[in-house]
Amino acid sequence: MKVEDRWRRTIELADDRASVNVLDQAALPYEIKWLRLATLADVARAIRDMHIRGAPLIGATAAYGVAIALRHDPKSIDEAYATLAATRPTAINLKWALDVMRRRVADVAVGDRAAAAFAAAAQICDDDVACCEAMGQHGLELIRALAQRAGDRPIRVLTHCNAGWLATVDWGTALAPIYAAHERGLSVHVWVDETRPRNQGANLTAWELGQHGVPHTVIADNAGGHLMRAGRVDVCIVGADRVAANGDVCNKIGTYLKALAAHDNAVPFYAALPYSTIDWTLTDGAAIPIEERDAGEVARIRGRAAGGAWTEVDLLPPGSAAANPAFDVTPARLVTGIVTERGACAASREGLLALYPERRAAAT
Amino acid sequence: MKVEDRWRRTIELADDRASVNVLDQAALPYEIKWLRLATLADVARAIRDMHIRGAPLIGATAAYGVAIALRHDPKSIDEAYATLAATRPTAINLKWALDVMRRRVADVAVGDRAAAAFAAAAQICDDDVACCEAMGQHGLELIRALAQRAGDRPIRVLTHCNAGWLATVDWGTALAPIYAAHERGLSVHVWVDETRPRNQGANLTAWELGQHGVPHTVIADNAGGHLMRAGRVDVCIVGADRVAANGDVCNKIGTYLKALAAHDNAVPFYAALPYSTIDWTLTDGAAIPIEERDAGEVARIRGRAAGGAWTEVDLLPPGSAAANPAFDVTPARLVTGIVTERGACAASREGLLALYPERRAAAT
Repeated sequence: MKVEDRWRRTIELADDRASVNVLDQAALPYEIKWLRLATLADVARAIRDMHIRGAPLIGATAAYGVAIALRHDPKSIDEAYATLAATRPTAINLKWALDVMRRRVADVAVGDRAAAAFAAAAQICDDDVACCEAMGQHGLELIRALAQRAGDRPIRVLTHCNAGWLATVDWGTALAPIYAAHERGLSVHVWVDETRPRNQGANLTAWELGQHGVPHTVIADNAGGHLMRAGRVDVCIVGADRVAANGDVCNKIGTYLKALAAHDNAVPFYAALPYSTIDWTLTDGAAIPIEERDAGEVARIRGRAAGGAWTEVDLLPPGSAAANPAFDVTPARLVTGIVTERGACAASREGLLALYPERRAAAT
Repeated sequence: MKVEDRWRRTIELADDRASVNVLDQAALPYEIKWLRLATLADVARAIRDMHIRGAPLIGATAAYGVAIALRHDPKSIDEAYATLAATRPTAINLKWALDVMRRRVADVAVGDRAAAAFAAAAQICDDDVACCEAMGQHGLELIRALAQRAGDRPIRVLTHCNAGWLATVDWGTALAPIYAAHERGLSVHVWVDETRPRNQGANLTAWELGQHGVPHTVIADNAGGHLMRAGRVDVCIVGADRVAANGDVCNKIGTYLKALAAHDNAVPFYAALPYSTIDWTLTDGAAIPIEERDAGEVARIRGRAAGGAWTEVDLLPPGSAAANPAFDVTPARLVTGIVTERGACAASREGLLALYPERRAAAT
């Protein structure tokens, strides 16, 4: 993706080849700032405080976190694993990446571990980029089919939160098909849910679509149902933080409400995600841990005040409490399909196993 | 309702008996400020710019707007009607109140018109208070029935936007049963949707519940579906801006999404409204005009900055557009019941006609 007219990834190895630079998502959309992560503590803080977020990018960053920890102490794999695993509970990509890293260094001599870990982290990043590109192509076919029926008008896609370039190493999951369509001259328009409380839609999705020149309109999270009833949405595409083996989709809080509205109005609803987001150990979504974040994220919001200063304001009357569950689970029955790097499938155990037949033995 | 420990109505005749004082809702929750409305233009501006809002209060304020206009020019009924009718398109109470006022002064001698109009406006206000008290009693029965099954724990009510004291002359519509339960010592807890973009839930509902001592927690609009799936909501109660003769409920944008979630989780979903909110001329909700408000309401938000200043901040990246439909229509099939001053009924033509049999002749 282009940022300020240069092709960048959201996470890049630093010149010292012992640390990484990540685009600081907490500063967007008003400031483009790169953070250098040079220690395990740096990486853990960046994930926990959401300087980087998005399930695939959390995984990729955690992988580099292991490598950075091993550079300082090649015997610290258990500590690095535990520290990073505790940063965010919901996205399964985090655990997936840590498991991959542990396997990759398990039989490596102590002196070679850091190098092996950096190589493995780089491979996780490259693999994520390839997955996102493939999701873009498979999702593009779905958009193309809608476009054939739509005639000349743009295909109107609704998305929730940010499942774009910023949520991955490059291209995005839910937004990858949109970028693929845009690059091929297919006309798309994106309804961007602002996605309270942290406003990742308004802060991140609108910003990256704008950087890439994709037409979009930000709406309150309340508006999508009305737009679907009014026939103004052709398809919903969202990302995911964890998908159970039966196709239940855990994603940013509010996703379930949009899936209900899509179902009620016969609007196709897709989740796009790489294989690393599928948790084959869960038969359904009920057991997915839902992160309860600080109520201050609901009670306050940041924006740009007159004059340009990045300012946080209180939204609640003194004395009123707030609650902040950060994710919800959309039951598979409301999901038209799941798009992965291998193609699109039904949101069901059989659908997923048809894409990943190698899992059938373990899953049955 | 008590404000700063005094019983107040949201609209009160001023000492000069020729103007009114209204609580300025645009200044809440951080400032309690009363606005004097002394001219037709004052009243129109207060409604259009949402210094007062809420379907019943819009009607009551418009009634006084007619009276104030006639005090200045007793022959200005048509001008006053047209000016006030143009302020907000969705709430039918506005047109209802203007129609009542026109009928009340139609056969009155020019010299007596202003006095007749002030008397009629006062009667509309008293009638609204009586309706809200009655809704409180009928809704209380529904809460009582839930409490019998719940045992000792509080009844957890989810509400959207503000349909409380501030939306009416006193007591509220959706919140009237909550106040009635609270006064009788029934334990209730209210989940308050913040209700972007104007945050009437966070600014107004949380404030008035807090003033009255009712336990409540503010949540992002995205959270309600998850809470219902988790079994943490016993009942949803919302207000309405217009209800069609078949029970379709037009209310603040996002109401439809909560009704879908309630239906999906077998949580009862009620709309509470006075007879003046029912539009018997509409066979269903499809023809209700949906107000499209300024996109700036999505692109910016006001809150209290450090230091206490009421500050507006930009939320969108430069160049990103926003859209702002202000209401949606919840189909009657998703509404468990409608609570009016006459009782609770099914959200259907037959249900409403059973409560209002005098409408049957006109409706068939």
